[in-house]
Amino acid sequence: MKKRIAVLGAGTVGSGVCKLIAENGAYMAQQSGIELEIAHVLVRDTKKNRPGVPQDVVTDDFSVILNDDSVEVVAEAMGGIEPAKTYALAALRAGKTYVTANKELVSKYWEELEQAAAQTGAGLYFEAAVAGAVPVIKAVTDSLNANQIHGIKGIINGTTNYILSKMSNEGLGYDQVLRQAQELGYAEADPTNDVEGYDAQFKLAILASLAFGKRVKVEDIHREGISQIKAEDVKIAHDLGFGIKLLAIGKMVGDELQVRVHPTMLPLEHPLCSVNGPFNAVFIDANALGEMMLYGRGAGDLPTASAVVSDVLNAFQVSKHRRYPFVAPGAPTVQVARDWESAYFIHTMAVDTPGVLAKAATILAECGVSIEAVMQKGEREEGKVPVVFVTHRTHESACMKAIERIKQMPEISAVSIIRVEK
Amino acid sequence: MKKRIAVLGAGTVGSGVCKLIAENGAYMAQQSGIELEIAHVLVRDTKKNRPGVPQDVVTDDFSVILNDDSVEVVAEAMGGIEPAKTYALAALRAGKTYVTANKELVSKYWEELEQAAAQTGAGLYFEAAVAGAVPVIKAVTDSLNANQIHGIKGIINGTTNYILSKMSNEGLGYDQVLRQAQELGYAEADPTNDVEGYDAQFKLAILASLAFGKRVKVEDIHREGISQIKAEDVKIAHDLGFGIKLLAIGKMVGDELQVRVHPTMLPLEHPLCSVNGPFNAVFIDANALGEMMLYGRGAGDLPTASAVVSDVLNAFQVSKHRRYPFVAPGAPTVQVARDWESAYFIHTMAVDTPGVLAKAATILAECGVSIEAVMQKGEREEGKVPVVFVTHRTHESACMKAIERIKQMPEISAVSIIRVEK
Repeated sequence: MKKRIAVLGAGTVGSGVCKLIAENGAYMAQQSGIELEIAHVLVRDTKKNRPGVPQDVVTDDFSVILNDDSVEVVAEAMGGIEPAKTYALAALRAGKTYVTANKELVSKYWEELEQAAAQTGAGLYFEAAVAGAVPVIKAVTDSLNANQIHGIKGIINGTTNYILSKMSNEGLGYDQVLRQAQELGYAEADPTNDVEGYDAQFKLAILASLAFGKRVKVEDIHREGISQIKAEDVKIAHDLGFGIKLLAIGKMVGDELQVRVHPTMLPLEHPLCSVNGPFNAVFIDANALGEMMLYGRGAGDLPTASAVVSDVLNAFQVSKHRRYPFVAPGAPTVQVARDWESAYFIHTMAVDTPGVLAKAATILAECGVSIEAVMQKGEREEGKVPVVFVTHRTHESACMKAIERIKQMPEISAVSIIRVEK
Repeated sequence: MKKRIAVLGAGTVGSGVCKLIAENGAYMAQQSGIELEIAHVLVRDTKKNRPGVPQDVVTDDFSVILNDDSVEVVAEAMGGIEPAKTYALAALRAGKTYVTANKELVSKYWEELEQAAAQTGAGLYFEAAVAGAVPVIKAVTDSLNANQIHGIKGIINGTTNYILSKMSNEGLGYDQVLRQAQELGYAEADPTNDVEGYDAQFKLAILASLAFGKRVKVEDIHREGISQIKAEDVKIAHDLGFGIKLLAIGKMVGDELQVRVHPTMLPLEHPLCSVNGPFNAVFIDANALGEMMLYGRGAGDLPTASAVVSDVLNAFQVSKHRRYPFVAPGAPTVQVARDWESAYFIHTMAVDTPGVLAKAATILAECGVSIEAVMQKGEREEGKVPVVFVTHRTHESACMKAIERIKQMPEISAVSIIRVEK
């Protein structure tokens, strides 16, 4: 059965889709009975020669795709909101299934996309939008469907994981590693979207919505990036038996959902701690199956294309596309926790005089923050020494109140915190 | 939408299915729209009280289930060939979908089951048969469907992984750990099925068939268990930077498929090496997505039930059940490799006299087996010392020929080999 599709965008992922279908098309047809044919590839400049993208199907006119009734599925790999959003809505309203790797679009405009899709019965698929080739969307929707999910913890941004892995393995500072990552193409010229956690925030919004069955919006998610992490933090964490990862966390506690993206200290023996370089992994805790983990490549042309084309094949094989009731009008909203419990690693630089440690410890005690470990180690910097506290589990609000007061101590010149998960 | 199912067997997994539906049924109904109702549970003794199994639905008469037209899906958790096979064929011929955790039944009688299922259009589902809660069947069929799979390596038997983990962590011998595992319920009174690799062989037959798109029969798979592994092997392997795992391996090399279950040395930094205790994990290498790994609980009441009930829910949501063309009459057969390449760890006990090592090394050279490392270490036993060779990659047949000759050396009293994967 021959099936015609259109690809929007011919960058890394779009050209990956073309290459993948060229490479594996015959095998896929043999296994699934579906022979995919790329009818159109939407590009900005039709003159430009792109390796792997057949020149005879490129177009710069989306209406050619929209008006081609033989095209049932549109696979988008452009990224960004516009023009992707306009194309998505037009395709879905025309009854064409939309497969996308665009995490920002789905996480921000899921309601509009789903409403357009539901009206025509078209499908909306986005396995490639979260963790690339790691089939975490399908695992949550189709394999964990007999479970209530308690929590998810994911390394879902390859750029930050590459930077943190390299800082940890080679003892280098953030700026130096970022520059290397940019030279190698692992980080963009403007790395904000990755290093400040926006990309992980978009992905977590999608994943947590599916995992907990309620719409989690981008702005519901507490977000902190890795640009403040110092080589010294990584070193001390390691000495204490922890690694530092940028985690996307979703956790149901009572009827409140915690959703947060921030640098996190994890015990070195935790499976997520050995996920290095550009790899992604998602750890899931569910009430029937217990703990599970999915691991694989989170980005790259063929890995991401693998998830896109898998969605395309699945879209052609179902009789009815999955609907997302939690983004329908009037769906119950999720109650997002604003003051969760965590343990904290508090790293200060203090003047090396007697009484400083006692003073900071008193502030923590007055704020109700109980201390698990105190450490004064590392090298002196201009008469200052690092003083590190690791707290027991405490409320975020209590810890933040204590931090504010510690920051005002004249003997203290810098304070950074990293949350600790066990 | 209320859906009635029957459960065959009320042991660990069968009662787990009952408990899971009692616990998560309302949540599943809310998320999927499908309200599962257990209409019958087939047991041998209807008088026996089983925690979690509603007494009012137990029956010892399969015909009650077969003749209940309101039951669309039968979930089997009995294990073994008979009476499961008779029930399966009867249910499928009556048009009832059969969901099973029975790896032996599917791996040995897939043709008959599929033929019966295809005739009535009933579904045949077996996610729970391979690696319990780890959704590896669905990953291969639905998420890797745009890939050509090069290889799979799996820890898919929890009993042997528990034993090997404990031997490695605590330096204990096989017999002692097996006894402990039996006391804790991790190994059966007759452990043959697990420790000799039969269970992993059944599972690999299913998984490799799906991964490579051709029927792999149980007898196609080379099988060795772990009962010959000595504490000393584990210790020396560790000193050389390797862990020992019972791996199920499927690997396409050229047009030949290698399928084998045997103890395997893996570099300690390989992700599979940190899969400990009763956990399962499957590592997959595919041409588009590269490397991926799935990790989770491979056994237990609720984890296995999670996979069974997931299949049940999915069976109610598809319009057409998946067919398995590679077990249809006349399907092309797979070409199974009989003489693969591997590196080998060869562990001998030799009389401590000059020239023994040279003699054994000469035999290896004469058989065309090239040596990567030689080691003479560990404790002496009654005037004998362990002599260990690690070979470069070589043909199995060449290595076996050399082993046969080394075994005949009067100075050598014991030889064991473990294959090495990198």
